[in-house]
Amino acid sequence: MAIHYPNGKVYTPKKEQIRINKKDYSFSNRGKTLEDELSDANDFYLSNDIAVIYKKPIPIQVVKVDYPSRSSAVIREAYYRTPSTTDFNGVYRGKYIDFEAKETENRTAFPLKNVHSHQMEHMRKVMKQHGICFLLVRFSAFDRYFYLPFEQLELFWDRMHTGGRKSIALTEFEDLAIEITPRYTPRIDYLKIIDNLIV
Amino acid sequence: MAIHYPNGKVYTPKKEQIRINKKDYSFSNRGKTLEDELSDANDFYLSNDIAVIYKKPIPIQVVKVDYPSRSSAVIREAYYRTPSTTDFNGVYRGKYIDFEAKETENRTAFPLKNVHSHQMEHMRKVMKQHGICFLLVRFSAFDRYFYLPFEQLELFWDRMHTGGRKSIALTEFEDLAIEITPRYTPRIDYLKIIDNLIV
Repeated sequence: MAIHYPNGKVYTPKKEQIRINKKDYSFSNRGKTLEDELSDANDFYLSNDIAVIYKKPIPIQVVKVDYPSRSSAVIREAYYRTPSTTDFNGVYRGKYIDFEAKETENRTAFPLKNVHSHQMEHMRKVMKQHGICFLLVRFSAFDRYFYLPFEQLELFWDRMHTGGRKSIALTEFEDLAIEITPRYTPRIDYLKIIDNLIV
Repeated sequence: MAIHYPNGKVYTPKKEQIRINKKDYSFSNRGKTLEDELSDANDFYLSNDIAVIYKKPIPIQVVKVDYPSRSSAVIREAYYRTPSTTDFNGVYRGKYIDFEAKETENRTAFPLKNVHSHQMEHMRKVMKQHGICFLLVRFSAFDRYFYLPFEQLELFWDRMHTGGRKSIALTEFEDLAIEITPRYTPRIDYLKIIDNLIV
């Protein structure tokens, strides 16, 4: 039923108001980035002895350092370098875990330009060592999360490099990836997916 | 037999000359740091599909970034942070590998102050997940390398915290660690040690 203002105009909730309401739900992501959410999950895993998984620091090339005092160092000139590996790695139940996490505002597909060829190469090498590799994608517009095994990612990657589409459709995620339903603690319990893969 | 100069003085090779001579041997470390040597080993493992092991970037807290142009970023103020984990991790034959590497100029013992309590805590957690953890120590004065399993390191750590010595004697390394003999390629083939542990 439409709500009317006293002046007769139809009330339409503004985007900002919707966002505020969402905060009332404990299950909402409260405006967190995917990285924040995975950091929460990894903290939970670590403190409960479930797994040891960290995000790697961003590699930075330091050029100039000042030493204002003997014990302190201030970096005055440095540059971001392109990471040669994925964002996250660690160990879970004896298994080596290695993955990349990406979020997209796109409502229909995940653009593959978000993944770099050196990351694909890294994951290929990890697979050869029997590590567990995957891509974790958040479609932020719908608050939906997908675990895409590397084997599947590689098929889409190869499709792109043989003239096919340069993205993975949301419908393809629905068909071929494993959806992670947000829950309470941790909200993005991605290791649950792995439990089913390594039994 | 002592060599005499024409003036009758006994010839004693100087340290510098010994160092130059050492460079003639392919097996010498050519003045490399332990980190360089492990980087060489990891490159070798990676390009030969033996293992995927990387040194983690040093965590840096970025405070101020300039953008002189749209595509470039120059970090103008940043600080080194204390790493919460070990230096190296990766995967080898399905096993998660996690270790810290340290060199010492000390000729009789390795001072335990080189290892931080948060690194010990990290390794303890990795052990619970059935990862392979160790400390790799180089006694630079003798060009000797030791692989000390975490279980053993922990005993020395506990000894220190119950009033015992604050270092591990070289003789204790000889007795209780596994010595890595430098060879040709890679010079420090530390994964060979693990082969014997995981057969």
